[in-house]
Amino acid sequence: MSDRHPTRRTRVRRLAQRGHYDRDTLYAILDEGLVAHVGFAIDGQPYVIPMAYARAGDTLILHGSVASRLVRTLAGGLDVSVAVTLLDGIVLARSLFDHSMNYRSVVLFGRAHRVATHDEKRAALEALTEHLIPGRSRDARGPSPQELAATDVLVLPIDEGSAKIRSGPPGDSKPEDPAIWAGVIPLATVPGPPIPDPDVPEGMEPPGYVRQYRRPTP
Amino acid sequence: MSDRHPTRRTRVRRLAQRGHYDRDTLYAILDEGLVAHVGFAIDGQPYVIPMAYARAGDTLILHGSVASRLVRTLAGGLDVSVAVTLLDGIVLARSLFDHSMNYRSVVLFGRAHRVATHDEKRAALEALTEHLIPGRSRDARGPSPQELAATDVLVLPIDEGSAKIRSGPPGDSKPEDPAIWAGVIPLATVPGPPIPDPDVPEGMEPPGYVRQYRRPTP
Repeated sequence: MSDRHPTRRTRVRRLAQRGHYDRDTLYAILDEGLVAHVGFAIDGQPYVIPMAYARAGDTLILHGSVASRLVRTLAGGLDVSVAVTLLDGIVLARSLFDHSMNYRSVVLFGRAHRVATHDEKRAALEALTEHLIPGRSRDARGPSPQELAATDVLVLPIDEGSAKIRSGPPGDSKPEDPAIWAGVIPLATVPGPPIPDPDVPEGMEPPGYVRQYRRPTP
Repeated sequence: MSDRHPTRRTRVRRLAQRGHYDRDTLYAILDEGLVAHVGFAIDGQPYVIPMAYARAGDTLILHGSVASRLVRTLAGGLDVSVAVTLLDGIVLARSLFDHSMNYRSVVLFGRAHRVATHDEKRAALEALTEHLIPGRSRDARGPSPQELAATDVLVLPIDEGSAKIRSGPPGDSKPEDPAIWAGVIPLATVPGPPIPDPDVPEGMEPPGYVRQYRRPTP
């Protein structure tokens, strides 16, 4: 990645102190998130679709079963923009104007290609499942030839991108502002008690990676 | 909205049983979400940026302070696609292939215009703050003329869009699948204890709308 040399389209032009370009920062955000919003344009018409994803080294795997037609279009070589956003809190300022959110976001640019071989698809399904829930791919059944044929997976090289982060208290507090409570309501993605599938035998306990599930994963 | 008559670009082509087009379904998702991913294209180059938003009647207000240059571009009359996605759970199947997520998502299409008058901007800031945290706009100081001048707000008519929803247990369970635990780990956006701004006087308690904050809002 051109970490220290942001390109024209990735440079964060406003609030530049929130811009980050190093892989460690980007990858921590990508590894914590669960949904990517993938944007592309066909004849000038923009589309944004939510997709499952996983980072595998310096690539992003995008799982397209939710939008097979669009995946085929993307795989034809269109430019994409991929955003992953983690919401960390609601920022309550004293002024309406300064209300905000704490967040960490990544935006990537590039051209995704469609994974072709069954070996690559199998590796991608494993990476996607491990991204959702580490440890699971050891237990789950691997894909059948029919399932691999039905799997549309895209791979995007992580070559161009940037992160933006807002954290901390509100930025206001002026003499004329009212003396009201201000601060941050932290937000987190929190798991509830696991719900067994109706076909799970009575008395079968969920494995540790389910009972102790949390984001970010350990 | 052409609720019962989805257009070509909004029709959910795959997994059509997950497609919804009625305003009640779309608006419940929009009202619960906090971040919109806004896609647009400039000279064929797609961009996706996270933005704050609020629904006001049959329009979506998008707050562009995070990307002022892009907001000015959007305001020039570009087509946009806006996605809001709520993640409800991790779906653990017996096969790698059937691992999935439970989610509710909305994708809108249209052309956003930039709000011009101070009255409209003031109403938009109130709507954005009420969307984040109902009750707050009564306490917070209203915007000054300087703040209104610095406010870039877009309004998108909600005329064309669709929702997709996945819920419930995994879809697999075949005779050849391993006898492992399967089911759903529910996920929720949960607030933590409020963190007061350093300038909040000691002993000042947060208001009820902070202490009892939750999503979706009551």
